[in-house]
Amino acid sequence: MKRSLGPSVLAAPSPVWVIGTYDSAGVPNLMTAAWAGICCSKPPAVAVSLREATYTYGNIVERKAFTVSVPSTRQARIADYLGIVSGRDVDKFGEAHLTPVKSELVDAPCVAEFPLSLECRLVQTLKIGLHTLFVGEIVDVKADESILVDGRPGLDRLDPLLFSAGEQAYYGIGARMGSAFRIGRESPRDN
Amino acid sequence: MKRSLGPSVLAAPSPVWVIGTYDSAGVPNLMTAAWAGICCSKPPAVAVSLREATYTYGNIVERKAFTVSVPSTRQARIADYLGIVSGRDVDKFGEAHLTPVKSELVDAPCVAEFPLSLECRLVQTLKIGLHTLFVGEIVDVKADESILVDGRPGLDRLDPLLFSAGEQAYYGIGARMGSAFRIGRESPRDN
Repeated sequence: MKRSLGPSVLAAPSPVWVIGTYDSAGVPNLMTAAWAGICCSKPPAVAVSLREATYTYGNIVERKAFTVSVPSTRQARIADYLGIVSGRDVDKFGEAHLTPVKSELVDAPCVAEFPLSLECRLVQTLKIGLHTLFVGEIVDVKADESILVDGRPGLDRLDPLLFSAGEQAYYGIGARMGSAFRIGRESPRDN
Repeated sequence: MKRSLGPSVLAAPSPVWVIGTYDSAGVPNLMTAAWAGICCSKPPAVAVSLREATYTYGNIVERKAFTVSVPSTRQARIADYLGIVSGRDVDKFGEAHLTPVKSELVDAPCVAEFPLSLECRLVQTLKIGLHTLFVGEIVDVKADESILVDGRPGLDRLDPLLFSAGEQAYYGIGARMGSAFRIGRESPRDN
């Protein structure tokens, strides 16, 4: 028997991703977002939902581009900070001691210190309610060598943050549970 | 210095969510999806992207409703199985020993055995490429009492699966890293 919790965003977990943009004056900005996820394989694309009130929202509408960086658990305080203050009020790159890196592919800044980033060009915009969903085509993925295993990101090496909406808290990742599209072939029943 | 990995879906992590639908004959079906996430707070809404080739795709288009269930790491084999086979060919509920529970709110089945589920009515559809993004308004969240802390899901109690696209593997969650909208107030710099 389950308990009804009412209409709410209590799915879990959500990612903790940092969205990079330039404003109209070319000043680089960052904000942390959790209402996001991969949304297409071909072309590779990511969906990021933002409130219109955010500074980043206007930047994406104007520049038609953004980056998605994945901070590691070591950068939890920075990621949290980037979701608290607004780029209208402060230079978040400067305050957080982060280094903007100009993308050669899209009109948005990457962040030198985060281990993984996606460079995205805006391809679709969908107004939902308080949040508007931006679909960005991923034109490149850039990763620190240190997180790569056979040339692809290892989740334990990336060591990303997760957001728990029910607790308004961050978690790290845990143990590897097996290979996808394989462990269910043997038995579809309880482990 | 980062390495360029080219255009790809290597953001991380992605959730492992199970989508519940009825087909045109009223047969309940399930499939596992990782290209998904919360996409709006008001109304609470979730975005789930599916290939048109899946059985679930047609079911959502027809029924205009779906559920999202969050399996725990103990159910990793079941979750993987539900992403391998098609409801066109097999009765996945029966094969996986899962119990469909009729929703009183939307035209889609919940799953008794999964600890958390969202009941969603389709509100928007956005064709992106190989995948089409379905926006479901979350009309209720139902949770096992055992995962609740102060009436809301605790991520460590839910113990959800994560998907690592780079490794095609599942992971569990790890340690709590601090409170959101709090740990960044003290210092925006390195931890």
